[in-house]
Amino acid sequence: MATITFLYKDLLQYTEAIFQKLGSTPEDAALAAKVLLSADLRGVDSHGVARLSGYVRLWEVKRVNATPNVQILHQTPSTATVDGDSGLGLVVAPKAMQIAINKAKQVGTGWVSVQNSNHFGIAGFHAMMALEEDMIGICMTNASPLVSPTFSVERLLGTNPICVAIPAGKQPAFVADMATTTAANGKLEILQRKNLEAPIGWIQDANGDATTDAHALKNGGALLPLGGNREQGSHKGYALGAIVDIFSAVLSGANYGPWVPPFPAYVPMPTNMPGKGIGHFFGAMRVDAFRPADDFKRHMDQWIERFRQSRTIQGQDKVLIPGDPEREMEEVRLQQGIPLLHPVVEDLKSLAQRFDVEFPSHNS
Amino acid sequence: MATITFLYKDLLQYTEAIFQKLGSTPEDAALAAKVLLSADLRGVDSHGVARLSGYVRLWEVKRVNATPNVQILHQTPSTATVDGDSGLGLVVAPKAMQIAINKAKQVGTGWVSVQNSNHFGIAGFHAMMALEEDMIGICMTNASPLVSPTFSVERLLGTNPICVAIPAGKQPAFVADMATTTAANGKLEILQRKNLEAPIGWIQDANGDATTDAHALKNGGALLPLGGNREQGSHKGYALGAIVDIFSAVLSGANYGPWVPPFPAYVPMPTNMPGKGIGHFFGAMRVDAFRPADDFKRHMDQWIERFRQSRTIQGQDKVLIPGDPEREMEEVRLQQGIPLLHPVVEDLKSLAQRFDVEFPSHNS
Repeated sequence: MATITFLYKDLLQYTEAIFQKLGSTPEDAALAAKVLLSADLRGVDSHGVARLSGYVRLWEVKRVNATPNVQILHQTPSTATVDGDSGLGLVVAPKAMQIAINKAKQVGTGWVSVQNSNHFGIAGFHAMMALEEDMIGICMTNASPLVSPTFSVERLLGTNPICVAIPAGKQPAFVADMATTTAANGKLEILQRKNLEAPIGWIQDANGDATTDAHALKNGGALLPLGGNREQGSHKGYALGAIVDIFSAVLSGANYGPWVPPFPAYVPMPTNMPGKGIGHFFGAMRVDAFRPADDFKRHMDQWIERFRQSRTIQGQDKVLIPGDPEREMEEVRLQQGIPLLHPVVEDLKSLAQRFDVEFPSHNS
Repeated sequence: MATITFLYKDLLQYTEAIFQKLGSTPEDAALAAKVLLSADLRGVDSHGVARLSGYVRLWEVKRVNATPNVQILHQTPSTATVDGDSGLGLVVAPKAMQIAINKAKQVGTGWVSVQNSNHFGIAGFHAMMALEEDMIGICMTNASPLVSPTFSVERLLGTNPICVAIPAGKQPAFVADMATTTAANGKLEILQRKNLEAPIGWIQDANGDATTDAHALKNGGALLPLGGNREQGSHKGYALGAIVDIFSAVLSGANYGPWVPPFPAYVPMPTNMPGKGIGHFFGAMRVDAFRPADDFKRHMDQWIERFRQSRTIQGQDKVLIPGDPEREMEEVRLQQGIPLLHPVVEDLKSLAQRFDVEFPSHNS
């Protein structure tokens, strides 16, 4: 599909201006734009600026508060429960992660569970905030129900991603950022747009049978937990998604399971919701809370180098370290710009017009 | 395969006596026996009393110290690094988990990384210690390399299990205890004994090709990370196994990746080992460090009840909550006894003779 390429800094400025028009403070708008665009830079196109009008629609129906008072409801020296006050997850999440980091500075680790938030972009951004502090960063979030537990035909879990970011020395950091499903919903959307079949193990139909129909979700189907089916370990993917849901929402007082509010503003809200908004969970662990940071980094370098040097199966030239593809994509896109699909560009242009914001010229 | 059934309390007494003969203190021997037998009770037969003679052989070659001085090397209010002093993991692990629990009592959470340990039985036992304190328990360990990362033909990771145990109110606790591979090695061993084929996605051959040959591991093959292949998400299982390895060993100063010492005492030790023994990682989080424990438990009950009531696919009568099968097995085996295979019984009898310990009579 044809794309048009824009410079990162131009899209950042544009996005920041839109968030300001929604009423965000300049600081919050800058933060939200940076978090949102980090997805485009890292190649997670489904979670980047393409979603901007989705956030605007949540603001229109008053599900997003542009001036949230993000505050701690309850805390101990190593933990906090945070109320996101219905703010953009793009703003609530980095503030909550900063609380985790501050606690880790004091007592070694910090753990923050968040209620009353919204979609926070990519988990990787928030977890990676820990890296510059020589900390391991952990980030997870629940999401609206698209996934069936093993043996279920109901959708009870979101794609519930987990990110763990681990600093190294000379080597780039280890950053595993993954949905707890076989495939992220964004990958399925690409197949849907191209009318291609999905591999077996990604989705099931309304009866719970394996299917390759990429459109099955629209007809009562569901995404499958990592593993795909029981014999291939889907009960483990289901357990991982469940853990993310419980840490993010049962600990914090957010909604969980089938009650998590949907991202599309036109989808009706669930009834009898047991909590507030969606939930996230953040962790920060100082590596020098366990051993001297230099020792840790030297061994982390050795770990990474040994895995990189592994002999490969035929047809593959290297074993990847988690985070390699996204980091390489970020280097390319910072230089060459971010390619956007035509429909996304049209959507962003109409937002620009509506909010009287300048739309950037494309880069080529 | 025919089995002989023994009462739990008889096997416990026998196992305790064997550990005492190795030189363990009465307290440590009782603890080690309880941890080891918890695997048999919960139906994880590969990790129970069948391994007793394996532990004895490690003691024979002086890789297990029967009287370890388990001590904290480094700590902060919420963390500790523990030296297992080459003790039985069955003793080191619950002591390290207790340190995590004690820290959680003080500052909300506790996180302990352990070096210089040995195989610790099932992860579930240690994580579940947190439940009676109204804490979430987390436990992981690395293990000798049997698993190839995605695109690799080398074995660089162990089956590296993760357990997360979460307390509930009226409902039994949520306990997810899983290898980060598609299938645990114990399940493969069952297929090998019965000369059955393995499902695709469990193992690869020496060239890295998918195979159903359950004996492929003996011929240079490897277990596969959860997901099985790249298209089915094996890079996520690889990342999970890697995170377990790094938390357990790079944080603590234990051996990691291909350098983790093998469980069988006859397998030569790796050369140029970068650390000490194998590594574990433990976490404990007080639920009331986030919200009142009663609120948490009420919502956890609602979470569990909603998932249990899910409509099922044809041919399955219920959606399981992680931990259900093991808990049901424990109830049965506490009453009816633990069935052991004939070769295991013969092995235990010869240990009894050698150490002049009474062997229990079977229960039927």
